Amino acid sequence: MELLKEKIAQNGIVLSNSVLKVDSFLNHQIDPLLMLEIGKEFVNRFADKGITKILTLESSGIAPSVMAGLQMNVPVIFARKRKSMTLIDDLLTSTVRSFTKNETNEISISNKYITENDCVLIIDDFLANGQAAIGLIDLVNQAKAQIAGIGIVIEKAFQDGGQLLRDKGYPVESLARIASLEEGNVSFVTESITEVSK
Amino acid sequence: MELLKEKIAQNGIVLSNSVLKVDSFLNHQIDPLLMLEIGKEFVNRFADKGITKILTLESSGIAPSVMAGLQMNVPVIFARKRKSMTLIDDLLTSTVRSFTKNETNEISISNKYITENDCVLIIDDFLANGQAAIGLIDLVNQAKAQIAGIGIVIEKAFQDGGQLLRDKGYPVESLARIASLEEGNVSFVTESITEVSK
Repeated sequence: MELLKEKIAQNGIVLSNSVLKVDSFLNHQIDPLLMLEIGKEFVNRFADKGITKILTLESSGIAPSVMAGLQMNVPVIFARKRKSMTLIDDLLTSTVRSFTKNETNEISISNKYITENDCVLIIDDFLANGQAAIGLIDLVNQAKAQIAGIGIVIEKAFQDGGQLLRDKGYPVESLARIASLEEGNVSFVTESITEVSK
Repeated sequence: MELLKEKIAQNGIVLSNSVLKVDSFLNHQIDPLLMLEIGKEFVNRFADKGITKILTLESSGIAPSVMAGLQMNVPVIFARKRKSMTLIDDLLTSTVRSFTKNETNEISISNKYITENDCVLIIDDFLANGQAAIGLIDLVNQAKAQIAGIGIVIEKAFQDGGQLLRDKGYPVESLARIASLEEGNVSFVTESITEVSK
């Protein structure tokens, strides 16, 4: 997605060989128009998959997911990283290790909003080692729902999460794939992506 | 906002005399079309205020804020409740006591995204005792920016936060004001609101 790549090239800050900071438009400050375009692109990539729900993880996954949900006219569920006092009924839970934040979170969703009749698109802001996606997949599997695919805003293609998910057979669509952050530079994977027209 | 009140009446669950659960469309599962309408209503309520940024608090404030930001064509910043490893530069911080969750959170924003030239609309999902809004106001004040007003999706008008903020002189616009949750029923404040047409 060229618009996203341009935004990353212009506004992304390389903090190390593995950490890209996109706080100016995705992870802290949010560019709503860019989110709308990202939502539209997810619709293009996952057209005709019969998606009934979008599942994401708080907090940075919410904005792109809500815009995709708006375009697809389906509800968005965000998994919580901590238990909420008003989220007390039957929970589906999984565990996600975050290497960036050096912590382990329990993530959970209510068992009311994803059921065996659902076809779920998982969306997240970053894909690195794939731990968050695997946790979300686990929640969908516990709900006995189908997984339509995994939509990622930014994939760190130099880490193994993308390969791991594709090897498991999940359709993974990443709107920007980063080949390397070495020497403070962002370089993208150049590839021809077969896009399903809307 | 009638659409919102209908949604609350149909889908809200009264957990106690003070706790309303709206996990089916706002706090866990999100209805993107409703969020879009909420965003439009915030635009109507705060038209001509010269808003340059929207500030909210993760996670439930993000969806309505992004839709308002889309309509106003301004960036959204969400304050974080915990420090992120990629959010390491100069932070503005405040403290918010959550009575619902029975915990105190440090909330923070980068000092890069709100500056003295900004006119900020604060948006949050709930207004009860006003602690979250006061924390967000504190952040805007630390940034020496102006406050255009406070936009709330659901105000528990039987708690004192709304009065507290209005007494301090802030324009507060709540899209649904709940008078009472007693005996398991949601009753709304009936009032005539002067709306600024778009």
